[in-house]
Amino acid sequence: MAENYVITIGREYGSGGREIAEKLAKSLGISFYDKNLINKVAEKTGYQVDILDKADEKAAHPLFSAYNIPPGLDVGTINDRLFSCQSSIIKELAQKESCVIVGRCADYVLRDMNNVLNVFIQAPMEARIARIMDRYLIDVPNIAKKEIQREDKIRRSYYQFYTDRKWGGNLGHHLVIDSSVLGVDGTVDLIRYMAGKRFGL
Amino acid sequence: MAENYVITIGREYGSGGREIAEKLAKSLGISFYDKNLINKVAEKTGYQVDILDKADEKAAHPLFSAYNIPPGLDVGTINDRLFSCQSSIIKELAQKESCVIVGRCADYVLRDMNNVLNVFIQAPMEARIARIMDRYLIDVPNIAKKEIQREDKIRRSYYQFYTDRKWGGNLGHHLVIDSSVLGVDGTVDLIRYMAGKRFGL
Repeated sequence: MAENYVITIGREYGSGGREIAEKLAKSLGISFYDKNLINKVAEKTGYQVDILDKADEKAAHPLFSAYNIPPGLDVGTINDRLFSCQSSIIKELAQKESCVIVGRCADYVLRDMNNVLNVFIQAPMEARIARIMDRYLIDVPNIAKKEIQREDKIRRSYYQFYTDRKWGGNLGHHLVIDSSVLGVDGTVDLIRYMAGKRFGL
Repeated sequence: MAENYVITIGREYGSGGREIAEKLAKSLGISFYDKNLINKVAEKTGYQVDILDKADEKAAHPLFSAYNIPPGLDVGTINDRLFSCQSSIIKELAQKESCVIVGRCADYVLRDMNNVLNVFIQAPMEARIARIMDRYLIDVPNIAKKEIQREDKIRRSYYQFYTDRKWGGNLGHHLVIDSSVLGVDGTVDLIRYMAGKRFGL
């Protein structure tokens, strides 16, 4: 049996990273994980999905620690518990199946595993503004821009809090690509090309 | 006649970036520019090649300004003169032929031109150490590592001095790739694949 491989995808907000990741998984015929990892965490911990959802991909805010911690769990913020449990699940999944994982510091979580390709998707601000305006039917570019900056800030502080690495296209990534050059489908093809060479697909 | 296109290649020291760039140019059948740009600058300015060579890809050191400035040229460090003249030559070349240009802030110099693909090559420190040890017959990994850190520092301060941008895989690059994943030839193929899609080759 061929070994499993994992493609992790980090992404700037509005770069189309999630859509690219989903199409990539589909075209390779492998599993796709992003927000849906929360359901597995909920099953395992007993937390409610909507509470986990608020903490998803966020570093702990001091106020979050006010949530009640279900009995039997270690004390810590819900964000920390989510990160820790999600990390275990990511490691288990990576052992048993090939998959694409979006965000969740998966590149860091799987840093000791072979057969991982770490990709980061970015795009110029104008392209991201256009994408977010289109997607959320926003009329004013500046509103989209503020939302992008806010979301990037949340992702950055989440990533840096749990990994001590710099967020964004950087060390630890094997490929960083500007999705505005080839578009969503062209970017999927490029990553697929690299994964094919890397994993002998 | 098809439009010209330019591929700029920035690179960490020891990542194999120059070799990748040269092979890429060869495989595309287009011109290759790196240190050889200095000869064109020498022709144009009357500076001696060996003096230009010392200033190549370096931000001005205060002592460099002690070099005599040939009559008729603006006052400024030789590094500034080199950068300015080299930038004009890069712009002229980009207008008249397709080419691959290594370093020299070419991504920044050509920022207003269409048909430019900006690539940055990086690699993990261990891979770079191995490459430099092999290339310069160095026996001690730490000596190679110090040389790498020193060269990166020079390139970083040169790039940041003239562009006000952060050096390294970052905004302004369309593709950042870790050359240790696919090796020199595999990395050439990947960039070629992307350039082919981008420029309709």
